[in-house]
Amino acid sequence: MAIAVDAMGGDSPLAVQIEAAVRAIRDFAIEVVLVGAEDQISKTLKQHSYDQHKLRIVNSTEIVEMNESPAQALRQKKNSSIRVAVDLVKAGEAEAIVSAGNTGASMAIAKFVFKSIEGIERPAIATLMPSVHRNHPFVLLDIGANTDCKPLYLLQFALMGDAYARTYLHLENPRVALLNNGEEEGKGYLELKETYDLLKQSTLNFAGNIEGKSMFRDRVDVVVCDGFVGNIALKVAEGTFDFVRSVLREEVKSSLLSKLGYLAMKGPFRALGERADYSEVGGAPLLGVNGVVIICHGNSKVHTFRNAIKHAQECAEQKLNDIIAGEVLENLEVINQAKSLNEEE
Amino acid sequence: MAIAVDAMGGDSPLAVQIEAAVRAIRDFAIEVVLVGAEDQISKTLKQHSYDQHKLRIVNSTEIVEMNESPAQALRQKKNSSIRVAVDLVKAGEAEAIVSAGNTGASMAIAKFVFKSIEGIERPAIATLMPSVHRNHPFVLLDIGANTDCKPLYLLQFALMGDAYARTYLHLENPRVALLNNGEEEGKGYLELKETYDLLKQSTLNFAGNIEGKSMFRDRVDVVVCDGFVGNIALKVAEGTFDFVRSVLREEVKSSLLSKLGYLAMKGPFRALGERADYSEVGGAPLLGVNGVVIICHGNSKVHTFRNAIKHAQECAEQKLNDIIAGEVLENLEVINQAKSLNEEE
Repeated sequence: MAIAVDAMGGDSPLAVQIEAAVRAIRDFAIEVVLVGAEDQISKTLKQHSYDQHKLRIVNSTEIVEMNESPAQALRQKKNSSIRVAVDLVKAGEAEAIVSAGNTGASMAIAKFVFKSIEGIERPAIATLMPSVHRNHPFVLLDIGANTDCKPLYLLQFALMGDAYARTYLHLENPRVALLNNGEEEGKGYLELKETYDLLKQSTLNFAGNIEGKSMFRDRVDVVVCDGFVGNIALKVAEGTFDFVRSVLREEVKSSLLSKLGYLAMKGPFRALGERADYSEVGGAPLLGVNGVVIICHGNSKVHTFRNAIKHAQECAEQKLNDIIAGEVLENLEVINQAKSLNEEE
Repeated sequence: MAIAVDAMGGDSPLAVQIEAAVRAIRDFAIEVVLVGAEDQISKTLKQHSYDQHKLRIVNSTEIVEMNESPAQALRQKKNSSIRVAVDLVKAGEAEAIVSAGNTGASMAIAKFVFKSIEGIERPAIATLMPSVHRNHPFVLLDIGANTDCKPLYLLQFALMGDAYARTYLHLENPRVALLNNGEEEGKGYLELKETYDLLKQSTLNFAGNIEGKSMFRDRVDVVVCDGFVGNIALKVAEGTFDFVRSVLREEVKSSLLSKLGYLAMKGPFRALGERADYSEVGGAPLLGVNGVVIICHGNSKVHTFRNAIKHAQECAEQKLNDIIAGEVLENLEVINQAKSLNEEE
């Protein structure tokens, strides 16, 4: 079955998505449905040669702007490219969605149309982060919009992150940790202490609290936090990387020797960039809705977007959502306990 | 007047503190009081030559352990080195304190003995962070233990960070920003939106919200967040730096050329390390109590600890706490508004 691609989202609609789709059907055993303005898509497609059996177009007449409010996009744009793509999957005509459009709107529309997986209150966005150990990334979630850090939600994020690590990273028993300001039990504010207790009781392989520094080194597989903290962590890592690159580029100019050294180190620098950049993987999954949705950065490159299409297919084929639903079922008791905490607060 | 040095705190008590004190009185116009076990201090001091007029010892009989609870240290160890040092300043016999001991205990004891500055509810710990612009660090606070993000506290952190940037960084009109998950007004959870409104009304040069990535580049001078988020931001930056160093060291081994390049780039790498490492500055100020306290890492090196002694003297001489008190007075109206928000919640 095909992957629905929102052709109109992102900073460079049509161009990136169409080239990525053409490459995906060439490189993988994948079919794609491009959703967007049919005439524009057809026109752009003429620049490419591709297997017409593996690519079709579904027309949509509206576009959700990048800065549009999710609520408005949901209510008023029922023929937007992302909405039509989601409806296609809901109708069973495609198996997953990739979009580089307005993230909030994609989340709202996916949640509205697909509904949440039974037992999951808040969908979350997960991303892979690099560790110092080669080929050993970890899953960080939520990096989405859930700034609410209730233990119930954090517990559900942990279950979803675990399911994603099992299916997509093929880990048998992922080590799940809670991002905190110290490693000892009892660290952090009340909600984190409560979450710690819940995670201990769950079926998860809970590795306890982890700090923002040691998560890059301690061989954990899933790191759980609320969406605000996840956003800060992700952006600070990007900013530090940017700092290192910027300062080295400047300092290298100080002597001819170091300029030559910089050239000689091209290989290691490239390797560093590749090991740091998990956009290579292609997008971030929206976890917790009854449908597979892969979210890409608005400024994603063709290569990343192509990989995101593959990523979507793998999550769908490996029945990620069934694994999540199974983990929820196995943890109903602790989820109910978290719900009663929720009501007390 | 002298700086009181807690000689018994940190991972290597006595050794680091005593050598740092000897160097500080040699390198700067500074006097030091070493507070700790007098016999042990005297014995260690015999290995050094120094101006005896600039260094004296005050005995203390107890030690606060690194993992001891702050409440217990405060109640039960009235003759600990940190407590005696704080009491010396309170009695006017020293003008500031430097400690690498148990941070929570130092905070609790300082708050108890000195009391908070009028109008400040929660003392905070500030640190300098590097930006991509040479010699343009920014102040990040709170990185201490305040995991509570009430708008009242965040407003007070902003005022204290501003005062610190004015006095210690000699900035005339620091740009103060609020760490958030987006730059637009209205981002973040309710408390952050309320804080945004308060900061807009304050006398501060408020630059709006800032993201975790752009704070390293956008020429802001003070970045305000609660202590949990500050801890995560600081540790993630350290972890990313550690990641870069670790991966480059590994990748460099792949070829002789890149090994040679690495050697040739020693200068730029050293410069990067120096520009990233604000421990050079020496410690982090505890802001908001009626006394100057500089907190050092437990594992601080002699050079850092020496600089922390200088740092303490500068904060005391520049009357940092008077500047904080002045900023509070100028912002009484908005502080009262924040207090009424506090009561509603």
